Amino acid sequence: MDNVLRNTLLYDFYGDLLTEKQRDIYHMYFCEDMSLAEIGDRCGISRQAVNFSLKQTQKNFDAFEGVLKLVERHIAARAQIEELRAAIEREDYPECRRIISEMDDMTAR
Amino acid sequence: MDNVLRNTLLYDFYGDLLTEKQRDIYHMYFCEDMSLAEIGDRCGISRQAVNFSLKQTQKNFDAFEGVLKLVERHIAARAQIEELRAAIEREDYPECRRIISEMDDMTAR
Repeated sequence: MDNVLRNTLLYDFYGDLLTEKQRDIYHMYFCEDMSLAEIGDRCGISRQAVNFSLKQTQKNFDAFEGVLKLVERHIAARAQIEELRAAIEREDYPECRRIISEMDDMTAR
Repeated sequence: MDNVLRNTLLYDFYGDLLTEKQRDIYHMYFCEDMSLAEIGDRCGISRQAVNFSLKQTQKNFDAFEGVLKLVERHIAARAQIEELRAAIEREDYPECRRIISEMDDMTAR
């Protein structure tokens, strides 16, 4: 998967678990495409501190994704919905039933 | 929702974020139905310490669910799959299309 998309999904799923400052820095860097120096200026901290915060955030995201796998599951669920939509569009109802059973199994707890 | 089911789902989704000890205590209490005294005996800690651990775990789970809402989303997703299965069984394909669109909206990011 494209890294920008992955970073955006990680931010979407786990962003609320960050501190406000970490979240702001991550957003400025990955979503507003600001440089480390620009972010440092805006926050009144050094370039190095910005870099450190981004690295910490990435570590936190990787730890959460390692356990919860929300991004991975989200991508799998989206793919299934797409398959299902395509199957119903071509009126392939046995395939729809198969996908629904698969969804059922995948979300069983 | 039934509290036992809710506690089981919280454990399923967020259990891996606990320490091993917290996880064991929670499992003995909610899944093996052991008493505080029995758990204390097995772990070599006081009844009070067991109780404290369970309260901490519950707080952690509530905090994670407050942000990530995995249990809430899981229940909504299961309900949709059930609706979809019922609609396809009665060959109500317009209803299937409606539910698929709803799923698509709910998982859009």
